[in-house]
Amino acid sequence: MEHTIHFLPDDIRVKVAPGENLLTAAAAAGVYIHAYCGGDGVCGKCKVHLEQGEVETDHAATLKQADYEKGIRLACKTRVVSDITVRIPDTIKSDGKALKREPKTTRAISARSMETLVGTWKIDPPVGKLFLKLSPPSMDDNVSDMQRLMRAIKIAMPDNPEPNYDHPQLIRELSGILREAAWEVTVILLHGKGATEPDRIIAVEPGDTTDRLYGLAIDIGTTTVNGILIDLNSGEVIVDGSGYNAQIGYGEDVISRMIYAARPGGLKTLQEKVVYTINGIIEEMCHKVMISPSDISYIMTAGNTVMAHLLLGINPRYIREAPYVPSVSQFPLTKAADLGIMAHPSVRLFLYPCISSYVGGDIVAGVHACQMHKSEQISLFIDIGTNGEIVVGNQEWMVCAACSAGPAFEGGGIKHGMRASQGAIENFHIHPETYDPMIVTIGHTKPRGICGSGLISIVSELLEAGVIDPQGKFNRELNHPRIREGEDRWEYVLAWGHDSMTGEDVVITEVDLDNLMRAKGAMYAGYQTLLESVGLGFGDLDRIILAGNFGAYIDLERAICIGLLPDIDRERYYYIGNASQLGCQISLLDHRRFRDRVDVRKLMTNMELSENPDFMNHYMAALFLPHTDMSLFPSVHLKK
Amino acid sequence: MEHTIHFLPDDIRVKVAPGENLLTAAAAAGVYIHAYCGGDGVCGKCKVHLEQGEVETDHAATLKQADYEKGIRLACKTRVVSDITVRIPDTIKSDGKALKREPKTTRAISARSMETLVGTWKIDPPVGKLFLKLSPPSMDDNVSDMQRLMRAIKIAMPDNPEPNYDHPQLIRELSGILREAAWEVTVILLHGKGATEPDRIIAVEPGDTTDRLYGLAIDIGTTTVNGILIDLNSGEVIVDGSGYNAQIGYGEDVISRMIYAARPGGLKTLQEKVVYTINGIIEEMCHKVMISPSDISYIMTAGNTVMAHLLLGINPRYIREAPYVPSVSQFPLTKAADLGIMAHPSVRLFLYPCISSYVGGDIVAGVHACQMHKSEQISLFIDIGTNGEIVVGNQEWMVCAACSAGPAFEGGGIKHGMRASQGAIENFHIHPETYDPMIVTIGHTKPRGICGSGLISIVSELLEAGVIDPQGKFNRELNHPRIREGEDRWEYVLAWGHDSMTGEDVVITEVDLDNLMRAKGAMYAGYQTLLESVGLGFGDLDRIILAGNFGAYIDLERAICIGLLPDIDRERYYYIGNASQLGCQISLLDHRRFRDRVDVRKLMTNMELSENPDFMNHYMAALFLPHTDMSLFPSVHLKK
Repeated sequence: MEHTIHFLPDDIRVKVAPGENLLTAAAAAGVYIHAYCGGDGVCGKCKVHLEQGEVETDHAATLKQADYEKGIRLACKTRVVSDITVRIPDTIKSDGKALKREPKTTRAISARSMETLVGTWKIDPPVGKLFLKLSPPSMDDNVSDMQRLMRAIKIAMPDNPEPNYDHPQLIRELSGILREAAWEVTVILLHGKGATEPDRIIAVEPGDTTDRLYGLAIDIGTTTVNGILIDLNSGEVIVDGSGYNAQIGYGEDVISRMIYAARPGGLKTLQEKVVYTINGIIEEMCHKVMISPSDISYIMTAGNTVMAHLLLGINPRYIREAPYVPSVSQFPLTKAADLGIMAHPSVRLFLYPCISSYVGGDIVAGVHACQMHKSEQISLFIDIGTNGEIVVGNQEWMVCAACSAGPAFEGGGIKHGMRASQGAIENFHIHPETYDPMIVTIGHTKPRGICGSGLISIVSELLEAGVIDPQGKFNRELNHPRIREGEDRWEYVLAWGHDSMTGEDVVITEVDLDNLMRAKGAMYAGYQTLLESVGLGFGDLDRIILAGNFGAYIDLERAICIGLLPDIDRERYYYIGNASQLGCQISLLDHRRFRDRVDVRKLMTNMELSENPDFMNHYMAALFLPHTDMSLFPSVHLKK
Repeated sequence: MEHTIHFLPDDIRVKVAPGENLLTAAAAAGVYIHAYCGGDGVCGKCKVHLEQGEVETDHAATLKQADYEKGIRLACKTRVVSDITVRIPDTIKSDGKALKREPKTTRAISARSMETLVGTWKIDPPVGKLFLKLSPPSMDDNVSDMQRLMRAIKIAMPDNPEPNYDHPQLIRELSGILREAAWEVTVILLHGKGATEPDRIIAVEPGDTTDRLYGLAIDIGTTTVNGILIDLNSGEVIVDGSGYNAQIGYGEDVISRMIYAARPGGLKTLQEKVVYTINGIIEEMCHKVMISPSDISYIMTAGNTVMAHLLLGINPRYIREAPYVPSVSQFPLTKAADLGIMAHPSVRLFLYPCISSYVGGDIVAGVHACQMHKSEQISLFIDIGTNGEIVVGNQEWMVCAACSAGPAFEGGGIKHGMRASQGAIENFHIHPETYDPMIVTIGHTKPRGICGSGLISIVSELLEAGVIDPQGKFNRELNHPRIREGEDRWEYVLAWGHDSMTGEDVVITEVDLDNLMRAKGAMYAGYQTLLESVGLGFGDLDRIILAGNFGAYIDLERAICIGLLPDIDRERYYYIGNASQLGCQISLLDHRRFRDRVDVRKLMTNMELSENPDFMNHYMAALFLPHTDMSLFPSVHLKK
């Protein structure tokens, strides 16, 4: 169910989920409301007039009773619980006239896109359980216990070749389990490819346990590790969990991790730390849904190349040194328990293959999830981050590259930059004439800093309002208290100290703008270089696929406005979310999808951008908002 | 080169190897010479007259100088170094007449048989080395190290699928090895089956090591572990080694080992002890030929079912309890190092599959070695021992059984029984009229006891001479000092105390004879029961194959005479020696032979004799010398 909000006087209608915060909804719809305190309810600026419908408000107390009775509400403390009509008060100029309002076009990439992209899958996982009632041995029939088991499997699956078994513990425990279970057991099989590759027995369990079959998908990020536990019988995600990668204490990014790994004992420590993190997530998830970690029959993981090397205990030192060579790109099948992961000793862990030192298994998993390798359409797959990854191609070819965008989108190199957590400005509008801000923070607290999506909002708003120019310089002629010369050249005050969480002014500076331009410039130059390398331009793209959590919070129009994303038909944009985890999830559920993951890697060709002269030229041209070549951005019209 | 000995007056000619001991040669040829002291040179009985040719004698001193000059020699101290003619002095009866001599037919199964049996094999082992010069990585070509290696393998072997690799250490060490070796490395591959099963990378070594490729064959016996090290490039056995199975301290036979394994920590101890033994043999062999254990690329082992279970750390408890079920019969591919064996960490250890609790991998290896599963001829494969194993069949079917013969052939249950070591009577003749013995011991020392082959000699000679009757009872009417009533019923004195090593009389008793009859009766009843189960008789057999070291020392005529072996055309008998080790050796060298080992197991059907009524009937009928049914032994004619 959804509710409709009708914003007046702009006459904008948006649909929101029940309980949606009204300030957040307005900001997402591009409807400007004064708001200084991020949604904390203290600045009292975001007054709106409820003309029709029901809302819930947290504390009417910050409003005068008289105002409340007139229908005035603080947008930041209002939850939408029915269809409503609200009127935003006009901003009155000093001459007493109301300022003209211009509603903005905003565009979140809709969630429907994902289903279109990833296609359907069957619940037909690469592991399965088989309940067997064996006839007990007798003097006339005293074949070995394993042969007895094999015979029963053959009867149950007459067309399959005899399964393999290679785990010592399995053969050591088998006789005991068969007898304790009175010859009624469940076999867990990892399915092979039929005639050319037999199934493999993972484990034998007493009794009928066919109703308990779980798979684990783990996305191993440099910062965060995410897990989901899937009931492989129903196909449903039954619980998820995540945690900071405990390697973080040994370096924030992959480079510092690699440096640490080179120290004596460093590699071992980092390997143990990521396993510790994974075990914590497994434990937490299993505890929540009351299953035993040993009921997990199958683990699918993806991570960047450095994370994969560290998990397997492979020294990543040659990744760091030119010409940037990983030890392995196709990782061997590994027993999870051999790495120290809390799992049944014979459960296999699959790691998505990587392409190169900086295009890792997370990207391969993402490409695999969205089936680029099965589509005739030419797609541009983008994962924006400190290390931005780009893939272009279709079912016949793919090229990929990593570009070092720097940490601006994760809050690095930005004076008040921060991760997307409580108090981070995530949405921002500026009044085009008063230059006053509308600030929405994560958690609706007083602002503390700026996260990646907030940064894009802020820069595009400042640019459109003419507060900054295409070179990323503040308009020195605007005489406004929020625009001033600060420590780091000129800056705009997003929140005054009395409205901020820290008590200090929260600002954005020209140095921040330079860093943002470098970050978005590297990404854009990456797209251009890859496309040119295959003789294509942006117009040839059928789809642009945004992956990574970041994509969920990006306003497409604003990202195009600053030149982070190409200015093409918005309908061609798709958002796939945590594509890496999605790839793992699909692989867990559908063995055909699981098998064709290898084809993805084989299609992909890596390109090194770091010493590529074309890339450098494109990069220099992209250090502008949105770009030196405005013909690339026909839909962006800046205020002169 | 061989020398011919012409024995007079019997006019028997035999060919012997240069340096052969004359007493041993005479005994083997069935030529009776007085000899009481086993060959020690002290009894002075074995005088012969050298009529022609050259010999070497150890100490003429025990002979009078006059005798020596007349050409008299002590046979036991004489080595044959040319063609010779020797005359054995007549035994003079009390009436002054010379006793009539009747030379015996004796028959060792000739060594030529083995080659006929096992066929030829190619030097084309299941493992191979490949020397590769890789191009170093560059910015234009920075695929992962493993991909670079795979690319080079593909160029070297364009028709093979990409090899697998699954050992963590391999991928952890690869980058370092490639760089230290300046991109010139040798890959060790375990060959797959082509398209359906790719090769597997065992290891990567710096530089060109293709001239060092070794395989290890280990035959794990309950008592003795034998190893041979094979140069897989030349196909030659370069060294062998053996040692007592260190498990022996925890029980002499498989039953007592299984009992020990049931004790707390017992299984672990036994597993460690056999590994300790194997490591000792590896170390000793490698030291002798100055190679490193890590240069062994491939290990092939065979052992009985209990030995295989203990090596892999699988509790053999259900083998001991009816209905006698092993945990596993087809053993999984195992990494030798995982068991604690001194080998490169990724080297695989193959164990020949077993058939049932008491027909083990040693028998499968033996059958595999002699290619029963590839031949139209119907063969009876026999391994005589405490646990006797019997296999009948050909390329289309095989049935097998174990029969518990008891330890008589290994000296157990025999008053002066002993293993085949120094001082054991290994050959024996009796003078048909004087009933005096001719005794040959291992090591030509004074006699200490009786080993298995000696026991067969003694019993057949006593039987033929009428000293014992077909019920195994001494002829009470022969008035001879060596035939007397002793502690264990009646007995024959093989050596008087003054001629023996212990100073005590060495005897054979009626109790010994009973035990021997039970042992040989179980074997013979086993052949009969198996053959009848497939509707065949001894006449249908094309070949009888004797395996095991014991076979080397058995005189065929005598073994038939006592009813241990069937009385069929002697030309159908073959001797294959340590067939288990031979199977391992051939598997190491020829990958096609290696692959078809699995077919052997699939052809073989086990039969339990222990509670089989037909077996019991046959067994009762066989408790006779040679058998109750003399029509089964047409060539055996006993003195009435």
